[in-house]
Formats: sequence, C-alpha cells, structure tokens
Amino acid sequence: MQKKHSFVLKGNICYSNSNKKLVICKDSYVVCQEGICKGVFRELPSKYETYSIKDMGDHLIIPGLTDLHTHAPQYAFRGLGMDLELLEWLNTHTFPEEKKYADLTYAKKAYQMFVDDLKKSAVSRAVIFATMHVEGTKVLMDLLETSGLETYVGKVSMDRNAQEGLQEESAETAAAAIRQWLQETEGHYEHTKAILTPRFIPSCSDALMAEIQKIQKETGIPVQSHLSENPGEIQWVQELCPNSSSYSDAYYQAGLFGGTCPTIMAHCVWLNDEEMSLIKKQGVFIAHCPQSNINLSSGIAPVRKFLDKGISVGLGSDMAAGYSTSVLRAMADTIQCSKLRWRLLDTDQKPVTLEEAFYMGTAGGGAFFGKVGSFLEGYEFDAVVLDDSALVHPQELSIRERLERLIYLADDRQVKYKFVKGNLIYEKNKKLLTNE
Amino acid sequence: MQKKHSFVLKGNICYSNSNKKLVICKDSYVVCQEGICKGVFRELPSKYETYSIKDMGDHLIIPGLTDLHTHAPQYAFRGLGMDLELLEWLNTHTFPEEKKYADLTYAKKAYQMFVDDLKKSAVSRAVIFATMHVEGTKVLMDLLETSGLETYVGKVSMDRNAQEGLQEESAETAAAAIRQWLQETEGHYEHTKAILTPRFIPSCSDALMAEIQKIQKETGIPVQSHLSENPGEIQWVQELCPNSSSYSDAYYQAGLFGGTCPTIMAHCVWLNDEEMSLIKKQGVFIAHCPQSNINLSSGIAPVRKFLDKGISVGLGSDMAAGYSTSVLRAMADTIQCSKLRWRLLDTDQKPVTLEEAFYMGTAGGGAFFGKVGSFLEGYEFDAVVLDDSALVHPQELSIRERLERLIYLADDRQVKYKFVKGNLIYEKNKKLLTNE
Repeated sequence: MQKKHSFVLKGNICYSNSNKKLVICKDSYVVCQEGICKGVFRELPSKYETYSIKDMGDHLIIPGLTDLHTHAPQYAFRGLGMDLELLEWLNTHTFPEEKKYADLTYAKKAYQMFVDDLKKSAVSRAVIFATMHVEGTKVLMDLLETSGLETYVGKVSMDRNAQEGLQEESAETAAAAIRQWLQETEGHYEHTKAILTPRFIPSCSDALMAEIQKIQKETGIPVQSHLSENPGEIQWVQELCPNSSSYSDAYYQAGLFGGTCPTIMAHCVWLNDEEMSLIKKQGVFIAHCPQSNINLSSGIAPVRKFLDKGISVGLGSDMAAGYSTSVLRAMADTIQCSKLRWRLLDTDQKPVTLEEAFYMGTAGGGAFFGKVGSFLEGYEFDAVVLDDSALVHPQELSIRERLERLIYLADDRQVKYKFVKGNLIYEKNKKLLTNE
Repeated sequence: MQKKHSFVLKGNICYSNSNKKLVICKDSYVVCQEGICKGVFRELPSKYETYSIKDMGDHLIIPGLTDLHTHAPQYAFRGLGMDLELLEWLNTHTFPEEKKYADLTYAKKAYQMFVDDLKKSAVSRAVIFATMHVEGTKVLMDLLETSGLETYVGKVSMDRNAQEGLQEESAETAAAAIRQWLQETEGHYEHTKAILTPRFIPSCSDALMAEIQKIQKETGIPVQSHLSENPGEIQWVQELCPNSSSYSDAYYQAGLFGGTCPTIMAHCVWLNDEEMSLIKKQGVFIAHCPQSNINLSSGIAPVRKFLDKGISVGLGSDMAAGYSTSVLRAMADTIQCSKLRWRLLDTDQKPVTLEEAFYMGTAGGGAFFGKVGSFLEGYEFDAVVLDDSALVHPQELSIRERLERLIYLADDRQVKYKFVKGNLIYEKNKKLLTNE
C-alpha cells in the first residue's frame, strides 16, 4: 500500500455537514494532507498547489461509508434461509454455519470472500462480528488488515442458549478466551481493532456479562451487541432478566451500555421512550439495519425518533439477515422502511430524507471511529470515487440527482477508487492493493 | 434472429407447476419443439435425440419472467424524485418527463435505453405503458419489436387532470388518437401487441372511458390501468365517481374490468373484500408492484389474500416509481413486503413464500400472455439461463438454495442467455441478436 501522503482529488464532491444538509461542490477540489482532510474548495488554495492533483473528471467523490453492523461468517449464506424469524433463524441457519469457523481452512476461504466483497464496495470502515473462535477471529483480522480497511472486529462471546460446539463452557472460560484473543492480537494490527462482543443477552449469562465488563474497564475497548430486534427475543430477555426494567436496562445494569464504555447496539426496533432516553444519555450508537429487520420479519425501527432525539445512528448491512453488503443500498432501505412506517404505523413520524440517510451511512456511523465520514476540515480522509456513466439517462441531471440515483441504483461496478485515511486501497479493474 | 426451431437445453432446471410448488431438476433436459416446450426430462427421450443439445453445464435454467406493469418513458428518471406521494409525484416528476416524448428524437434515445435494459434482464414478456403520443408510442413499439421480446404496449389515454401538452382535448380526440394508433400499427409487428391504456380514472372522463370501451368491444384488445394505489387517489376517485360503490366498480361500470375484456390492474393496495371478489369473478389480473408501493409511500398490497382467493397475480417493476427493472428483485420485494404486512398489520396473513413469489414472476404474470412462464408441456418456450458462479460461497448449495440466492442477489451480470418462444434473443457479452 502507498504511504499516507498528501494529494488533491478533483471532481464532483458530495458530503454532509450535518444530518440535514448535503454539501455539493461541482468540479471542486478536496485536499488530503497526510491522511487528514483539509476541506473542499472551488479553487485550489495556493498552499496546496504543489500537491499532486488526481482528476476524477465527471465522477462523484463521496466520503467512505461505514457499515456499523455486520457478521463476517454469515456472508457464506447471504440470500438464503429468509423464511424464519430471529430465534429460529439463529438455530437453523446461523449457528450451524458459525460452527464451521472452528476449521481454519474453511474460515480462511469463507472470510476471504467476505473481505473481497467489502474491498470492492464503497465501505471504508466496518464494525464486524466474527464467531466465538479465537483462531478463526484472528484469521479474519489478518485478512482485514491486509485489505487496508479500518475495522473493529469482535470475537463473539456466548455461554448459554447456543448449540453444542458453539457455546463456551462457562463465564470464566469465555473470559479467558477474550483475554487470550486480546493478548495475541495486541499491537499486531494498524487498521484492525478489537471490540468486545457479547452476542446478545440470551447468549450471555450474568456472570459472563460481569466478566466482559471487567475486561472493558481494564482495557477501555468498546462493545457491540444486539438490542430489541424481535418481539419474541424481547419477551425472552424479560424472562431472563426479571430485575431489569427493559432490554436496554439489562445492558445498562451490566455496565455495557455507553457512558465510559463506547457501545454500538444493532437494531433497536422496539425501544420504548425510556430506553431511547437512556441511549441518548449514555451516548450509545444505534446501528440501524433496515434490510435485516425486514428479512427476519422484525419490524421497522423508529429512526425519525432517533434523529429527533439526537441519538447517534449509523447504518448496518447486518449480513446475512441482510442479504446486501451495500451501505448505499442500506440508505435506500432506510428511506423506504421509514415511508412504510409513516404510512402504516404513525403519520407523525415523517419519512427519512435522502440527506438524513446519506448522513447516517457516512458521518453518522463514521463518528464511532472519530472524525470520519465527511470532508469537513480535520476529518480522516476516507473517499470513494463513483463512476455513474453506465447508469444511462437521456436528460441532463444535477449532481444531487446523480447522487440520489447512485444510492438507489449503484452496485460494485460504480465504485472506481477507494481511499482510507489517505491510502488508495482499491482501484476497479486493477489488482487489489495491499499492505505488503 | 434465428428462426423458431427445435432444440434441447441441458442444465439445472427450475419452474413452477403451481403457485405452491417449485419443480427442481438437476442435470436435466428441457425440450423446445418449434417454440413450444415439450417438458423436462431426467433422461432425454429417444424421439428428441436428433435435436441439438445446448449444454448449459452447472447453470440454472428458469422460465422467462414477466413484467406485468412498467412505464417505458419513466426509465429516464429511475432512482430520482423518491420524495413524493403518487399525485404530487405525477405532477412534479412524471408528467413533465412524459411530455418530452412528443419529440421523437428524445423518444428514440430514451426508449432505446429502456429496451436495452430490458433485453439484458431475465424478462421475456412485458406489459408496458408508453405516453399519450401516437408517434412516440410507435417508436417504442419499433424498438421492442427488434428486441425479440414479447410485449404489450399501450398508448396512454388521458383527457382530464393532466397538464398542458399532456392532455387530449376531448374524449373524441382521445378516441381518434387510439384509432389512428391501432390502424397505423395493425399487422406491423410479430412480437409487439397493442393494449388499451386509460391511465387511471382521474385522468379519464366518463366519455373517454365509454369511447375506450367501444373500441375494446370492436377489437377485443385487452386493457391495462391503475387501481387503488394511494389513499389520496382513492378518495379523489370517490369524488369523481359518486355513483360507483368503489374504485373497482368505477372501472366495472365502464365495462373495462375483465369478463370479455382481458384486464390488468396495477397495485390494488387498498382493495376491500367486495372489490377482490369482483376481481376474481371478472378474471382481472393484478400486477403487484411492491417496490413502487414502498417508494411512493402507498402501502403494502394484501397479496396473501389475492392468492387465497385464487386471483391471478403477476409482478410489476412499475418503473420509475419502482427504481429497479428486475423481476427477480420484485420477487424478493414481494416476500419482504409481505413480511412487514404480517408483522405490522395482520398476523393472519402469512408472508409470501419463495415458491409463491417465483410463481407470480413467471407463470402468474405469464398467464396474461397464454401458456407462458413454465416448462410444463405445451407452454411457449421462454427460458433464461442464469450463471451464478460470480456469487461466491464457501459451502455446497442445493439447486433450490442457488435459486433463492439468485432471487436476492442477481443482477444483469447473471443473465447469460435468454430465449423467447424458442428464439435466442440475448447472449451475454455478445452483440444483441436482432430480427434483421
């Protein structure tokens, strides 16, 4: 991979400066200085005149996208087994597949497919579930590191209600496995970070949650999990946690719900207002996964409420409950689901706009990584160059119209270049660039 | 184009023999005799041994798909203007675009893009709205004829509530335009048929509906229109037709609702039980357009009820309220929407199964063309060969699993060959074959 360096991209630049506002700069310059964005300019300031200018012609340049919730081992069965709800789906399709990742040959083969797909996409950052296997998780981290993507990866913890071969023996064993994994990967990677990953309350005993919290306090490593996805799941959590006032409260009581513990919770379809207030107060990120929530018949999350309350929301593909890895598609799905929610459930909650969906897929989720997902000055320089010339049309289109079309119509064929922290990590039709 | 002829395709063959049953035949033979399917065989009967065998290897072979409702002139703005409901969307985006088709140079350029897309898709049959322009509609019909696709095309009729430049002066003028169009195209085409196309009740005066019915009676030509898409539209129809008991009844009273008048009605999102009974009794086809119904915030049609009542249902892309031209995608959208309907509105209406969605996209909609959309003996030989080798996976998959994945994951890259009535009309990466 090329070293971080300083350069300028010229083209039609689109980014968010808030969740209400898309900034669109035709034929403009975005400056990268040692991996950091120095802003977007109609005319290039003289101090950057010595930088090399990469002219992207009529292409669109957008910030790299963040996939805030996805499961690498489930890539293998994307588009399959779409006939069940969450709990049955886990037992029938997911757990049997995840068991296979004890076999490192299988893990390497399957994870390589996932990583290759991610590399070709418009995603520059991702937060990823692996499986419970320490060695398999390391295989995934090795592959991701080579890709140049910036990611968090979680070895999954689960010590109850799973299946033979996919359940840790006790909270202590599970904690020891986390510690082993952290120790063996510490300092190994530049682009790949660890994230603590209790699968969800039904998979984790109180004792395991306590162990994970201890590790979190010691290390400061963030946490990801699932919250309030499916009515059957929520009822089960109530039974498992009789002393919690809600599903959110169960995580909160375990000390794994924001505050000093950076946290992503996926789904949040059926939260009550009290839970939303707690999420806001604790600074928990919500990973909104609309396609997954359709496929598993979970429902439609109240994204309008999340936005109104100022909750941090990003988008997740949730492979393989979501069958598409595309975060552009997740933006379209977000808008579409919000329309159905408005029409069928609550006309007080206005549909999500294009501006809001674009924000969630870029700066919204990117914020979990710091200043990521925008071309405002000081942001890390993640950029994707999109070539929409194959999406033919007979009439003149504005840049905003072309962006809207890309959100609805693009696939990997439209992704031409991808930069992460100023490094060019992917170029269409070229051999993938690697760290080596 | 090659002449209709007799041959055998060998591969993994999937088709419906009812809306509940997928027939899957690994490494089998499907026989085409002069454009007609003679059935699927595990071993090739000796009487067909002289036929040439085209070996499709490990590819899947499915019946050609039918797009039962789409608007050719709207292809130009697919993926744009997704922020409005039906009536505003028509006035803001659709009507201004459709006006442009008075210009034949523009019409030719724009329609060519639509037809090229359709050719590369898995669709072998389509029922298409053009615009109100006679000459523009003929341009579209010329292009479609050359493509080898089997289609119905409708010159749109509208004499009220449209916009200047897109409204016929009177019922008489509108009827004269239909007659001119029919006269000028009669006998011109082998693959392209005319269909009477009153846009929808709000665009057509009672006098125009009466004229169209007169033409329908004289010619026996079928009819397509829109029904019960959006609550605002339905209320407007009530005001416009005070003597009708329902939106369906308004078409029925006009004599343009099945019976001796073959009819397709798109959408049918908000039908009451009485309307569904009338549709069943009259043999009206419903074109279910799930993606359109999401994008325009219309709602989710009760497809489970349609199926239970034995109503004829096919799938429509409804370009450009639907942004995707893919009928495989329409199958996935049908399943997904039915899940949300089940979860959010009525748990008595079970989600649509893969079998049912596949049936609707093949034989369900195909039935409007006769014996079309299956490989049962006697069906017209429309076949699509799908190559899923680029959709990588690490594990063994059954043919049914591969078909499920294709429904969720395929785009035009997976369509390798397409046969319509026994003619090879498309081969990936080859120059498109034409009639000339």
